[in-house]
Amino acid sequence: MPALSLVLLFSAIICCSSTLQPVNTSSPNIIIMLMDDMGWGDLGVFGQPSKETPNLDAMAAQGMLFPNFYTGNPLCSPSRAALLTGRLPVRNGFYTTNAHARNAYTPQEIVGGISKDEILLPQLLKTKGYVSKIVGKWHLGHRPQHLPLKKGFDEWFGAPNCHFGPYNNTVRPNIPVYNNSEMLGRYYEEFKIDKKTGESNLTQMYLLEGLDFILRQTEAKQPFFLYWSPDATHAPVYASKPFLGKSQRGRYGDAVMELDHSVGRILSQLRTLGIENNTFVFFTSDNGAALISAPNEGGSNGPFLCGKQTTFEGGMREPAIAWWPEHIKEGAVSFQLANVMDLFTTSLALAGISPPDDRTVDGLDLTPVLLNRPSTVQNRPIFYYRGNEMMAVRLGQYKAHYWTWSNSWAQFKSGINFCPGQDVPDVTTHEQREHTMQPIVFHLGRDPGERFPISVLSREYRDVLSRVTPVVDQHRKTLVPGVPQLNMCDLAVMNWAPAGCEKLGKCLKGPASKPWKCVWTH
Amino acid sequence: MPALSLVLLFSAIICCSSTLQPVNTSSPNIIIMLMDDMGWGDLGVFGQPSKETPNLDAMAAQGMLFPNFYTGNPLCSPSRAALLTGRLPVRNGFYTTNAHARNAYTPQEIVGGISKDEILLPQLLKTKGYVSKIVGKWHLGHRPQHLPLKKGFDEWFGAPNCHFGPYNNTVRPNIPVYNNSEMLGRYYEEFKIDKKTGESNLTQMYLLEGLDFILRQTEAKQPFFLYWSPDATHAPVYASKPFLGKSQRGRYGDAVMELDHSVGRILSQLRTLGIENNTFVFFTSDNGAALISAPNEGGSNGPFLCGKQTTFEGGMREPAIAWWPEHIKEGAVSFQLANVMDLFTTSLALAGISPPDDRTVDGLDLTPVLLNRPSTVQNRPIFYYRGNEMMAVRLGQYKAHYWTWSNSWAQFKSGINFCPGQDVPDVTTHEQREHTMQPIVFHLGRDPGERFPISVLSREYRDVLSRVTPVVDQHRKTLVPGVPQLNMCDLAVMNWAPAGCEKLGKCLKGPASKPWKCVWTH
Ligand SMILES: [Ca+2]
Ligand SMILES: [Ca+2]
Repeated sequence: MPALSLVLLFSAIICCSSTLQPVNTSSPNIIIMLMDDMGWGDLGVFGQPSKETPNLDAMAAQGMLFPNFYTGNPLCSPSRAALLTGRLPVRNGFYTTNAHARNAYTPQEIVGGISKDEILLPQLLKTKGYVSKIVGKWHLGHRPQHLPLKKGFDEWFGAPNCHFGPYNNTVRPNIPVYNNSEMLGRYYEEFKIDKKTGESNLTQMYLLEGLDFILRQTEAKQPFFLYWSPDATHAPVYASKPFLGKSQRGRYGDAVMELDHSVGRILSQLRTLGIENNTFVFFTSDNGAALISAPNEGGSNGPFLCGKQTTFEGGMREPAIAWWPEHIKEGAVSFQLANVMDLFTTSLALAGISPPDDRTVDGLDLTPVLLNRPSTVQNRPIFYYRGNEMMAVRLGQYKAHYWTWSNSWAQFKSGINFCPGQDVPDVTTHEQREHTMQPIVFHLGRDPGERFPISVLSREYRDVLSRVTPVVDQHRKTLVPGVPQLNMCDLAVMNWAPAGCEKLGKCLKGPASKPWKCVWTH
Repeated sequence: MPALSLVLLFSAIICCSSTLQPVNTSSPNIIIMLMDDMGWGDLGVFGQPSKETPNLDAMAAQGMLFPNFYTGNPLCSPSRAALLTGRLPVRNGFYTTNAHARNAYTPQEIVGGISKDEILLPQLLKTKGYVSKIVGKWHLGHRPQHLPLKKGFDEWFGAPNCHFGPYNNTVRPNIPVYNNSEMLGRYYEEFKIDKKTGESNLTQMYLLEGLDFILRQTEAKQPFFLYWSPDATHAPVYASKPFLGKSQRGRYGDAVMELDHSVGRILSQLRTLGIENNTFVFFTSDNGAALISAPNEGGSNGPFLCGKQTTFEGGMREPAIAWWPEHIKEGAVSFQLANVMDLFTTSLALAGISPPDDRTVDGLDLTPVLLNRPSTVQNRPIFYYRGNEMMAVRLGQYKAHYWTWSNSWAQFKSGINFCPGQDVPDVTTHEQREHTMQPIVFHLGRDPGERFPISVLSREYRDVLSRVTPVVDQHRKTLVPGVPQLNMCDLAVMNWAPAGCEKLGKCLKGPASKPWKCVWTH
């Protein structure tokens, strides 16, 4: 068939002429796209009925989907600390011991932040010449010593805390937006978010900041790490004018559509610059959809139970897509149990850096999975923590709950519901219920929604426990908890006078220091 | 670019040489693949975390996905009657008036079946020379006058009722399996289903019957209609040996994998025979996943509320894929509100036949959507019936519930739960609750799980009602209910001595006729 050979030859020429530089597996650029409170069920490729994420669906079709990908904790700050340190929050200190099994984060009054003893991904990447930028939300502490440029990032455009507000600056300052080490303004002041209409240009700004960074590093032939962390899907959700009202899903969907569009723009820029074969991109979210804000300002966890703040699947299973043309097989699906801490170790592996050997690192190197050597790295457990307590563990398809809690009766009766419309007896409990003597076990393959506990009288139950128990015992026995960083609060530490405020005339005067033990209600 | 032109030219030659006959839009073959109790969330493309349906996912990638596709009733018999008549069961008689809002079907003791006054799809297709075969479950009545060959089908391989059993033939006969107009044997006798292991070769038989029919009609240059209706995903679920134990989801997943494999084989045969561009294929299911049988023998309704037997989304929203290479655009998604009755009207349109004009037909012609002329046919309502009651209506993104009921307290307390793990106050009620004066309204775009009723005090609620009320009034005012066919039961009518039993020595003796009004508990 000479005609066919000719076609193949010409096709090959056409195909490869679009690649501007040769494939390079050593020190590829790394982009981690971390969404805020976006749920597993928010992407078309994961079954969102509105199917409004064409760019993410295409990213999955060109890359590898991870249906069993987890966060390190069911809320923002500890999840992000886990990603950047490769360690469980109970190890890296992003938790509280003020009460049992409580979710702590970094509100404005938090005294602590990421510990000076923790080594962050950009600090390590710097040893191999990477330039790193964070665009968007930081959430690892807002005091000067905790900010990104102190922790290995070379550039930052974004904010240290959530975009809650607007506040009356005499009582509580509005959150600052930084450009590198100095504030540029504040949310609801220079950086508008219209809570009534949901309009804000922030995602567009974060997109342009990302694109500009990629362009500059590419022109400088610099390997780079971009940690792209927009927060439009965290309540109060927002979108820019062209996207408002466009979704079938209301304002939350508008925010998703704008983020999807931005992902498409970034991937498209990589192709335009000819660096797509030399850039590893990973898309995921920091925790499950916040059902407390649904349906107008919260997302979907698909078939999973409950959402953000909980250690049920809806709180911790995340949408996840890896993309790296010519390296990751198109349209692949990996059932590997994986988590955000693996992104730390995997990024190091891609850059040819060994993880720190003076501490426990929980992340695994996923490159064998990504590059399709074995399809599974290892049958590793996933731990589901809430504060200082290991609530549950997954091993293979089985998940054993040692503690269950949605939230307290007091919170629940005040209208705060992390599991709206869902009620699994003895599971979605409103008091902390201990099951350590007889864990509640689910088979997540047959029962992803955690609705049908396996009978404790069954042989299957006994078999599971005989395999899970040693894993849990080993974990508990060897665990050395880090010094908890999220115990103390103080109004004096809020964002009254961030660096750069003088130039802008935006320094505020805070109260005298009067620390207290933070109260974490759930 | 002469090189490129050459490539395109050769590509065109290569592409089209695989087509054995020219594209023909008039009288294409029609294949309707109707699954049994398969849920919206059972397909990878609709978000099943196990992603074990590569053939169906590929079918969607090559065809058009319908995320807003509905059945005509939340259980087998009336759903199938709706598909084949194009009419709501309340019109075609496949319902009961023995009690309010009850789900009736065709168990062995049912006296009735599809009314002699109803015109079925194969009867109409015959007027244009189509040859029709049903493979698998019929469920429109098992008495001689109700069987498929009396209602327009030319061939049949399958059974008139569900594969419940095994029975003691002195009390209740096992269900017969027919080849055309005569029985070949019975389930659990000649046609094995091992309820302990879940092993049965039935799906393989149904596959081969389908492939054989397609081959014969193609060789005879006959336009054909294949109604492929396997029931492996109806409890007791089954799969053949090569598929048993293969799924991450247990036995139910094994059944899904074998059906997915079969769909792949059928589509592949169409390509091999070169008739893929002349064969319209539609894949869907007869009702939502039976959560009462979950997790071992029931499927997933993804993010939707409840399942089979209910008029919540989980009971009536179905997986749906249309496939017709060169006619339907690859990878298309249509948000058209559509239902199984549209398959009746659409099939007629494809065959160039007008629907009957002496009766109300509920189905719409979807060909403009399929062939991408407008993207939506019309803003039509979807009616959710349970027996003789219109429980709910969907118009656009809004769904208004006029009645809510999951099942009775008595049933619920006996362990029958159509909404396991789900509980939406005032919605998943255990008594029939009337809301006709103030319907409960959900926005299915923002809230596909029907968890967050729109406040009756809101302007949105008033706006919705002002649009929905006239639609419902019009429907109720003009509705002429059919004569109910599913009111009477009688042990004498069971499958004691089906045609052909003499030859096999398998005739059984039934009791004398003693009819009673059937009791439908939910
Ligand atoms: Ca978050
Ligand atoms: Ca069914």
